[in-house]
Amino acid sequence: MKKYGFGVDVGGTTCKIGLFETTGKLLDKWEIPTDTSENGKNILDNVAKALKERMAADGIGKEEVQGIGIGIPGPVNGKGEVSMCVNLGWGRVAVAEELTDKMDGIPVKAGNDANVAALGEMWQGGGKGYEDMVMVTLGTGVGGGIIVGGKVVAGSHGAGGEIGHITMNPHETSSCGCGRKGCLEQYGSATGLARMAKEAQKKEHEASALDGIEEPTAKDVFDAYKAGDALAAEVVDKFASVLGRGLSKISCVADPEIFVIGGGVSKAGQPLLDVLQKAFEKEAFPGCKGTKFALATLGNDAGMYGCVQLILE
Amino acid sequence: MKKYGFGVDVGGTTCKIGLFETTGKLLDKWEIPTDTSENGKNILDNVAKALKERMAADGIGKEEVQGIGIGIPGPVNGKGEVSMCVNLGWGRVAVAEELTDKMDGIPVKAGNDANVAALGEMWQGGGKGYEDMVMVTLGTGVGGGIIVGGKVVAGSHGAGGEIGHITMNPHETSSCGCGRKGCLEQYGSATGLARMAKEAQKKEHEASALDGIEEPTAKDVFDAYKAGDALAAEVVDKFASVLGRGLSKISCVADPEIFVIGGGVSKAGQPLLDVLQKAFEKEAFPGCKGTKFALATLGNDAGMYGCVQLILE
Repeated sequence: MKKYGFGVDVGGTTCKIGLFETTGKLLDKWEIPTDTSENGKNILDNVAKALKERMAADGIGKEEVQGIGIGIPGPVNGKGEVSMCVNLGWGRVAVAEELTDKMDGIPVKAGNDANVAALGEMWQGGGKGYEDMVMVTLGTGVGGGIIVGGKVVAGSHGAGGEIGHITMNPHETSSCGCGRKGCLEQYGSATGLARMAKEAQKKEHEASALDGIEEPTAKDVFDAYKAGDALAAEVVDKFASVLGRGLSKISCVADPEIFVIGGGVSKAGQPLLDVLQKAFEKEAFPGCKGTKFALATLGNDAGMYGCVQLILE
Repeated sequence: MKKYGFGVDVGGTTCKIGLFETTGKLLDKWEIPTDTSENGKNILDNVAKALKERMAADGIGKEEVQGIGIGIPGPVNGKGEVSMCVNLGWGRVAVAEELTDKMDGIPVKAGNDANVAALGEMWQGGGKGYEDMVMVTLGTGVGGGIIVGGKVVAGSHGAGGEIGHITMNPHETSSCGCGRKGCLEQYGSATGLARMAKEAQKKEHEASALDGIEEPTAKDVFDAYKAGDALAAEVVDKFASVLGRGLSKISCVADPEIFVIGGGVSKAGQPLLDVLQKAFEKEAFPGCKGTKFALATLGNDAGMYGCVQLILE
């Protein structure tokens, strides 16, 4: 194994770049803007330029670089090709092949951003030491990454781990972003939690810390919950119950050893983990009980880590 | 690759044994009784005896045998060990190691019976040519086998593919065999279909071929459905709708290329496949639409085939 690796997490606004030792140590990280003009035709050139400049500045020769991993905000096939990436303005791009060419033959692997984030958490984060893991990202939506035997389940249409769109309530009347109704992320996300809080406010209830907050956020709800607020507890229990039931469905398919919980809502920390694990245990198929829960630890760096994990094989 | 392989599918009553060429050709199959007396201590001895007798009779030397695959009706870990198998009376048994010893060192691999059946269908059955496949067995319950990249997702507790226990209706009042309420197999199995038919009979309806059948079976319902019976169509649509929604949840986790449908209910054939695929397309996350459907083709031999597939690696 060579000494260095680069992880490049391409987002719609910036590309996060990390210089790693292949042992898993992050030596430095920085960002460059993502130039989405002209259908994003400069993105890979700009990445290559940034990497080459860094290698020259640090005196790193290409023979010392194990490879470059790159995460893309869209589906990526097993050959490292993208057929379309709306956020970058891309049509069909052979990402791994093109970046290898621009980097004088340094090996490149490409993956979907959510999937590489899951790999990052498995390699050096909350899932370290596990090979059968499901990453659950609780943000505006609910994202997922399914890892079986140390490898991501990308899915035949690139939709592996689209756990936010598991149907929870076929009788729901309001629509999910995907156009369907009753998806997990309509309830189990920061957005879902905020919506449940607003609904709870309208019902008759004891005085609550949430009273008078016009647009309660997930943070408001969990802060009140931690302070013992009854209304917040009601909302959190409902949130955890739906999410726990969603995770129980995932277990009946992939049966992971551990769920690693990340995203904005996971800033609530251990109390979230506790209520979620309790709800899962209540809902789970008996054969899946006892599955572990951990918080993600790498935050926004998870993608960079996972990109480097991609090139270690 | 050597010329021959044996597949042994151990059930609670009989062991099905197949002699295969490793090309996938089944040369002969036969059964021996499963002796579950004395905690099933004779089962592996009896299997070994049957295999040795056959090798002697056919003049097959051990140097011509690639290996023996054995399917067990319970969870099996990656080393081919069983920690408990109620149907066989077994506690902890190192199946692969013990059978290898009894067979003078011929390599043995062991797997769960439902999982090896899925592998069999992938290798030589309805899923031939696919590596990302979900096997769905519609019998008394709903069984599953998840295959990703040509390998079974056994799960960390051996509960991978326990798709019959995905919760479909948290408001259900009657209990599933697992002790929980509202599992997929309460609706999507032969039993579930029969139950829905009985419920439909009680409602006001036009004259139906199901009238007067005291205990309508899945076959009765599908026969009437194929003949254009309105009541049967109502029942089948409801059945397919729940099952299609269940499969849509699986797709949001594993996103297979194909669902292969087996078990007793699958004898209904193409009309079942059509109504199920239509229901799936209606329920599926947009990114998973277009997933293929096929009927299982190996019937009760699927396990034997899959056992042989296990030893090909």
